[in-house]
Order: sequence, then structure tokens, then C-alpha cells
Amino acid sequence: MITRGRILISCPDQPGIVARVSQALYELSANITESAQYTTNPSGGTFFMRVAFYLMEESDTLEALHRAFKPITEEFQMQIQIAMPDIRKKMAIFVSKEEHCLLELLWQQKMGTIAADIAMVISNHKDHEDTVKAMGVPYHYIPVTPETKYEAEQMQANLLQGNADFIVLARYMQILSPLLIEQFPNRIINIHHSFLPAFVGARPYERAYERGVKIIGATAHYITEELDAGPIIEQDVARIHHGYSVSDMKSIGRQIERTVLARAVRWHCDDRILLHENKTIVFN
Amino acid sequence: MITRGRILISCPDQPGIVARVSQALYELSANITESAQYTTNPSGGTFFMRVAFYLMEESDTLEALHRAFKPITEEFQMQIQIAMPDIRKKMAIFVSKEEHCLLELLWQQKMGTIAADIAMVISNHKDHEDTVKAMGVPYHYIPVTPETKYEAEQMQANLLQGNADFIVLARYMQILSPLLIEQFPNRIINIHHSFLPAFVGARPYERAYERGVKIIGATAHYITEELDAGPIIEQDVARIHHGYSVSDMKSIGRQIERTVLARAVRWHCDDRILLHENKTIVFN
Amino acid sequence: MITRGRILISCPDQPGIVARVSQALYELSANITESAQYTTNPSGGTFFMRVAFYLMEESDTLEALHRAFKPITEEFQMQIQIAMPDIRKKMAIFVSKEEHCLLELLWQQKMGTIAADIAMVISNHKDHEDTVKAMGVPYHYIPVTPETKYEAEQMQANLLQGNADFIVLARYMQILSPLLIEQFPNRIINIHHSFLPAFVGARPYERAYERGVKIIGATAHYITEELDAGPIIEQDVARIHHGYSVSDMKSIGRQIERTVLARAVRWHCDDRILLHENKTIVFN
Amino acid sequence: MITRGRILISCPDQPGIVARVSQALYELSANITESAQYTTNPSGGTFFMRVAFYLMEESDTLEALHRAFKPITEEFQMQIQIAMPDIRKKMAIFVSKEEHCLLELLWQQKMGTIAADIAMVISNHKDHEDTVKAMGVPYHYIPVTPETKYEAEQMQANLLQGNADFIVLARYMQILSPLLIEQFPNRIINIHHSFLPAFVGARPYERAYERGVKIIGATAHYITEELDAGPIIEQDVARIHHGYSVSDMKSIGRQIERTVLARAVRWHCDDRILLHENKTIVFN
Repeated sequence: MITRGRILISCPDQPGIVARVSQALYELSANITESAQYTTNPSGGTFFMRVAFYLMEESDTLEALHRAFKPITEEFQMQIQIAMPDIRKKMAIFVSKEEHCLLELLWQQKMGTIAADIAMVISNHKDHEDTVKAMGVPYHYIPVTPETKYEAEQMQANLLQGNADFIVLARYMQILSPLLIEQFPNRIINIHHSFLPAFVGARPYERAYERGVKIIGATAHYITEELDAGPIIEQDVARIHHGYSVSDMKSIGRQIERTVLARAVRWHCDDRILLHENKTIVFN
Repeated sequence: MITRGRILISCPDQPGIVARVSQALYELSANITESAQYTTNPSGGTFFMRVAFYLMEESDTLEALHRAFKPITEEFQMQIQIAMPDIRKKMAIFVSKEEHCLLELLWQQKMGTIAADIAMVISNHKDHEDTVKAMGVPYHYIPVTPETKYEAEQMQANLLQGNADFIVLARYMQILSPLLIEQFPNRIINIHHSFLPAFVGARPYERAYERGVKIIGATAHYITEELDAGPIIEQDVARIHHGYSVSDMKSIGRQIERTVLARAVRWHCDDRILLHENKTIVFN
Repeated sequence: MITRGRILISCPDQPGIVARVSQALYELSANITESAQYTTNPSGGTFFMRVAFYLMEESDTLEALHRAFKPITEEFQMQIQIAMPDIRKKMAIFVSKEEHCLLELLWQQKMGTIAADIAMVISNHKDHEDTVKAMGVPYHYIPVTPETKYEAEQMQANLLQGNADFIVLARYMQILSPLLIEQFPNRIINIHHSFLPAFVGARPYERAYERGVKIIGATAHYITEELDAGPIIEQDVARIHHGYSVSDMKSIGRQIERTVLARAVRWHCDDRILLHENKTIVFN
Repeated sequence: MITRGRILISCPDQPGIVARVSQALYELSANITESAQYTTNPSGGTFFMRVAFYLMEESDTLEALHRAFKPITEEFQMQIQIAMPDIRKKMAIFVSKEEHCLLELLWQQKMGTIAADIAMVISNHKDHEDTVKAMGVPYHYIPVTPETKYEAEQMQANLLQGNADFIVLARYMQILSPLLIEQFPNRIINIHHSFLPAFVGARPYERAYERGVKIIGATAHYITEELDAGPIIEQDVARIHHGYSVSDMKSIGRQIERTVLARAVRWHCDDRILLHENKTIVFN
């Protein structure tokens, strides 16, 4: 019987952290499968570490791990997250009309490359109801109009309460309520259809076309209160040329968007992302 | 005896342009080696075309070509450029402290991939004097201070007058005089060390670092009066991650900058670039 | 009423081809939307051209086009294909167990980026029957064993006869019958899961892992009798490192495979591909 | 006074390695700046680790480090390399006619991105003598003919003996003597002008052209006795199309070759490369 575990830590950097952490894992008879670390500065900076491991004994539960690490986290003023990958995260997907990101997430989840359970899909359109329900996933149609915005947000919050660990905005074209942003701090992943910080806001492809850029991109980031300004998780790009219409760019863009978003979601599920100020540290 | 030629045209799109142009070349016994065209819209848009060819008879001079195309340009309200690649363009390079773009241009010119003569290098520093002179290229050291700015610009303009066909700013860190921009309209190529329109202006790598982007880039563009807003010729990018310091980014960035700039200069020399509003059409 | 058309030509290069072709299109009042050409050598080489256009009059049918071009094709010993995009090609998809390429084709066809009708899916497994039938596409389960190979091939050939214009092998893991290859010359597109010509044949990811390459890829090509040796249509790659297992490589590889295959199929449907010896000319 | 150090280890994987190594570094008061590890399999595989650190006391010499790690290396049957980056490696560059890789290495060394001393350049041509000598680097012209091959190799071996730590073949077009390969095991870096294992051997661009590939590449690898079959350090690629002649491909290829080779050399100098069977583990 094998129990898999992951530890994510951050703390002020100082000598001895790795020695203590690895000693603790050794005493728990952990077999380390991956380990990565990063320091902003070995004197006076912040230290980040991710360790993935497995334990051979069933009794080594989450509690035992927390107990073992308690003295270390206190000594080093450490923030620690201990995750058991066998306890899968619950993901809620928000989507509007465009389906490519939704389909990619559904498919990669089914393939096992995204290691999460899909708790529900919430949409302000009915378009994807059949597709989603056919996969056994609850679909909540919650239309949003200026008049119903408040009630819609309440309904969303109620549905999510206790049922989702994180949210993915898979081309959801409504501004998210601050209520939800507060409820899921650094646990809402958005895909923005430009290479941020270029073309913040609406109609990025149209603006890229007008500016005459030679490369377009997409950006997955955690949502914060400021529009398109949250910590960037992943970006990718594709080359275009003068002959691409806005519609061609959107078509190419869809490929980038779904790939970038799926990567970001996979890393989030695999506990590969740590936050430092407004930036991500991605151990991948 | 072979004479090589290139024709760049733009005009309101309408049926029959290609037929007339290719008929004229046929009557001149031209052997077409490359031909590319683009229309913003076949009904009512603008049509662009580039034809590279050679003529078997020595007598087919530039004049003969202009004469042959005169009725066509009039009929189609065509803007036409006729270039003979054997008459090489004269390039002036401006550079400040950083040498990587300068070296790349010198090397690619020597290798023959950049088909231009280097008329001179102008710098506000003495650093590259030996390197440049060793290659037999005149080097003009023109320091620029707030007090001497006006005289410096006059000196630059005088040196360039009649001696250069276009200018390359190879990491020249001074704002160029409007005088020069007017003197060389759409014939000044700059390399900006970011993926425009992200990080317009100073210190782009520092700002990319602060924003936490996962990809950095560089942009070659024609200079216009508005800072970093001229027509983009070429861009490229490289992937980075959280572990890259500003200094690492600059180091990676140098590779992108020199490659992107050299490509843009090569295309300019090979008459591959047409302008449409604030955008480039690059037939490459 | 608009009729869209495309002409693909190849012939021995000589002066005057473009003039004659464009004159003929002009006389048909064609509005040219795209035109591209390539010559292996303007003296004595082969000339290739693709023109996309539309005609404003309904009466300009396929027949009229063929009539208009008959004297030209004779004069220049031209091979010509005239296609009307509104008459969509019929595509048959072959697939085995892995679904990613199949799903991509189904989705892009539904989105309209692949402009073909899906005539049928043929598989040696039952796995995808529900998915395919739910989209209204016929699914033919034809198991292949050493004993039934001949009958299976006969069944395939019978199903395809008159019902398919081209075949896509979307990770079909059986060697295709020479019968089919003959029946669909240069009209069977395969996706090979390596960067050809590296790792021809079986188990490319395993062999890439053993060789320790730092980049993996996929290749879409037309099938010929020699294994993995047909004309390459498109390739793409992704960066890996020492930490990638064979399984990780397969997972990354799936993203490349489906993208590369879908691109190749799109270009085939859009009549963008010409053949020259064992190579493709792709006007995209 | 700061002393910088790096440790590279490999050993059979088992629990406790990291704990012991990091404890030893802690006891030496080392400040860890980078640490990376990799296991082929936590049960029964091979474990690899690289740690970069600095020590605050001058007395912590190489010897002290070796002493501190002796019990650990014995306990874990560990292979260990301890490097002090302030003791720079001595690099010998071999080059034939093509200069682009040589120039890149010279420039990056001067810029400080390649942290090695250039002990000498050896060439079978005189072409680069002036360039190299102007940088204060000894240039040895050793022509190689079938008749003089043996003497040439003896001369090379004698020049290198005690004067070089590793060799870079910067487009050196002679087969290297087994004598040298034995003298510098896994310390000769070659750039091969194809995406290995495609196009092993001579004339890779010509063969890539004939095969009609859509992407070309270059590969930096350690030399072994078998041609182009040694451990791959780094690869990169560039997209081409049907319009590229062999000469165009060589021109694009030069950009890839010099970049890939320079990266591999930098990593070698920075002690980022470990070997496992015929593969590299690159901690970058």
C-alpha cells in the first residue's frame, strides 16, 4: 500500500532548510520522486521548495505528515502545504459561448493528464449543456444580465460553496464577482487571449491585428481584483504574418489558448505552483 | 550578362493587375524567380505585389523598366518601386554601448546574408571604434549630452546626407532627432528589447521581470515620431521561468535582439517589405 | 451569387505562364483572393502555382473554367487541378485505440476549420463507436487479424469506393493495404509520431527516450508504399528534458500529433498542397 | 571573502541521500544558491544531484569539501565532482573553414556568458588566424591530409596535454582521432548540423533538402567513438518550407548551430551536465 504526498514550502531563506526537510522525510521513510527549489536570494531572500514523495506505510496519513513538519515550520517561519494527490481537487469550470477550452479540459481530465474531478460547469449560455451532461458532469445555466448580475453571482457562490476547490474560467466572458475572487483567493485560473501584458482587456485579437504584431499569444493567470493583472502561470505564442485576418488569428489563437490553459490547470492540480508577490514559481 | 530586378507595387485592388504586370515582364523577357502578392480585400481593398526576376540582356536598365511600367502605374494608380539588387543599399548603423547587434550586422554583412554596404557606424561612445575600423568601416564618435544634442544631430544629418539609404539603430539608446526621422521616412529600423506592444519605453527587461512573464521577446520596427509605435517588421521570443534574473533575461534577450534585427535588415535590403497604414507586409 | 474557385498548376517553367493564367482569369472576371507561386529554377525547372478566386456569375461553372484553361494547359504542358471549395471533399478517417487525433479532426471539422465532410470512420476497435455515431458519422468496426487481413482490406476498399475522396490515418496502427494506397494515390494522410526521418517505424517515443533527444516531434505525410517515407506535409516539435518518461513524452506527443495532423488535413482540404518528386509544396 | 562551489553527484537511489548531503553543506555553513535533482526511479534507480553554493570563509577549500563528503560518498557509493567556479576550465576550440561557431564562442566568452578560458584554437586552415590572434588567443594551424594525419593528431595531443580541460569542435570537419577521444572522455563537445538522430554523417542539409523536411535543426553532443552517436546535450530547430534552397538552409542552420553549441558549452562550463548511460542530465 503506497501513499503519495507532496509538500510545498516557502520561508525566509537561511542555511539548513533543506537538511531539516529532507531529514524529516527520511525519518518518515519517504521515497522522494521529485524535488525542486528556488531562492530569490540565499541571503535575505525567500526560499521555495516542492517535494513529491511516497510512503510505504498506510498509516502515514496527512495528519502524521503535519505532525512531523510542525517543529520545522515553526523554526523556519515556514508556510507549508501538504497535499495527497489521491485526494483529488474539485474543479468548477466557467464558460461562455466558445467551447474549445472547455472541451480541452474535459478531454484532458478524461485522459488523466488533468488530475482533478470536475464538480460542475457553470455557463451563461445553454450551448454546452448536452456535451457536458453526456460526460456525467452537472451543468448549471446561469444567465447574466445587468439586472440579474447580483442574483447570478449569489447562485454561483452557493453552488460552489463546499463543492469546488478551484475555478477555471475557460473563456468565460463575464467580469467575475469580487465575491468569488475573495472566496477563491489565488484559486481562480483565467485564460486571457493575448500575450500579457500586451492587449489587456477586451478584443485583444482585433487590437493585435491593428497593431500589426507578428506573433500572437495567450496567457493563463490567477485572477485578482485588477483586470488581467494577476500572477501569470503560463504563456505561449504562435507566429502570424500580414496575411492573417482577425478571424484567422482567432482560429490560431484557440489552439494556443486551450493548450496554455490546460497546462496551467494541470500544474495547479499537481501542486506545482507557488506564489511570490504577484508572480508564480512553477516547478515543472 | 544577367541583370537582376525587383518590383514592389501597391494599388487599389481590381481585376487585371497581375495580368498586366506579368504581361509587361513577359514582354521584357524577364525570368521570374519569386512572386508574392496580398490583398486586404479583392473588392475595394489595397493590393500589394513583389516580383523578383532577371533579364538576360544588359540593355534592360532601370530606365527601361520604368518606361515599360509607366502606363500600368498610371492605369492602376499604382505606387511602384523598382530595385536592382546589384546596386547595393548603403546602411548606416547607430550604436551605443551594447555591441551584440552591431557585431551581428557586421558579421552577416561580411557573410553576404545582409546585402548592403555599410557606409558608416555612428556612436555616442568610443567603445567599438577599433572593431569597426578594423573592418574598414568609418566610425564616427558623436557624443550626445543635453547641451550638445542639437549639434550632434546636425553632425549626424550631415554625415548621412547622400551617404546612406537607410539607418539601423542597433541598440542606440538615444531618442532620435525628428530631423533624421523626416530625412529617412520608413527607412530607420530600430530593435526594441521587448515583445511590443508590451513594455514600450525604457527598461523593458526589468518590467518583464516584475510582471512575471513566462516569455520575453524583441521587436524590429520602423521608427516613427511616436516612441516604439512604428510598423513592426519582425518579432521573436524565448521562454523563461521564475528562476531567471533580470541579468539572465538580458543575456537571453541579446540573442533574440540580434537575430530579429538582422532578419529585419535582411528583408529591408532584399526589398521584401511594403507598408500599409502602420503595418508591414513582409514577402519572405 | 458568388462561385469560389481554386486552380493548382504545375508545368515546366518558362516565361509567360503567369501572364497567360492571370489573363485568362481576368477574362473570366475573376476576383483573385490569394495567389502564390514557386519555381524550382526559372530556367529549366518546374513551376507551381495556386490561385484562389471568386467569380461573380453563377454561370461560371467548373466546366467553363476547364474550357477557358484548356489552350493554356496544352501550350505549357501544364498539369491543372480546378477545385470548387463549395463542393466539399469527402474524408474517411481510420483510427485504432488512441483517440486524440480523431477527436481533433471531428472538432475542427465541426468548427469549420477543416472544410470537408466526414464520410465515415473505420476502426479495428469498437472504442470510439459511441462518440462518432453521436456526431452523426457512420462508424465501421472492421477488426484486423493476420487471418482476416485480406477480407478486412476488401471490406475497407468496398466501403470507400465512391464514398471518400481522401483518407486520414488518425493513429491507425495497422499497415495499410497496397490496394488502398493504389486506390488513393497521394490522397492518404498519415500522422507519424516522430520527427521524420528520425525514428521511422514502430515505437518512436521509446526510441527517442533511449537516444536521449531533447526535442520530440510529429510528422504528417502522404502515404507511399515505403514505410514512413512519403512526402512530408507538416512537422512540429516540442522541447523535452531528461526528466521526461516515455509516458510523459507520449502525452506531450499527443498534443503535437493532433495539431500537425489537423494542419495537414486542413491544407489538403483547402487545396494548398502540390507534389514534386517526393516533396510537398505547401502554399499556406 | 566568498568561495563559490558546485557539487555534482550520482549514486544508486535510496532514502536519505539529500538529507545527508544537505546536512554536510549545512555544517560547512554553505549558502545554497541552486539545487536540482533527478532520479531514474526512487526504488532501484540512479539518483543525480547538482548543488551550487557559496562559503563565507576562505579556509573552505576544495580539500575541505572533499574531506567533508568522503564518508557520504563511501556510504552511498557515490560518484562526486566538486568544482570551484573561480578555477575556470580551459577550453580548446577546433575549427575548419566555417567561422560562425568559432566567432560565437569567442564573443560569448568575452561577454562572460561562457565561463572558461580559451587555451587555444586549433585549425586545419589558416583562415581564422588573424581574428583569433587579435583576441590574444594562440592559434595553431595544423593541416590534415591522409599522409600527415598521424603526425597531426600527435601534434594536437601534445598541444592539448595539460593545457586544456575540454575540447569544442566548432564545425571541425575532420574525424577526430580515437587518441583524443580517449584523452578527453566525455569532454569533447561537437556540433552536428542536423537534428539527430536524423541525418547522421555528412551533408545533412543536402539530405534534409532531398527528404523535404519542414523543420531543420542542430545538435550539440559529447563525442564518442561511434559517429554522431554520443550523448546529446542540446538541440534546437527552425521552420523551413519548400522555397528554401540548400544554401538557405545552411544560412538558417548557422544560426541554430552557433546558438545550440554555445548553450552546450555554457552548461558544460557551469557544471550543469551529468551523464547516465548514453544520455545527459542537464540541470539548467
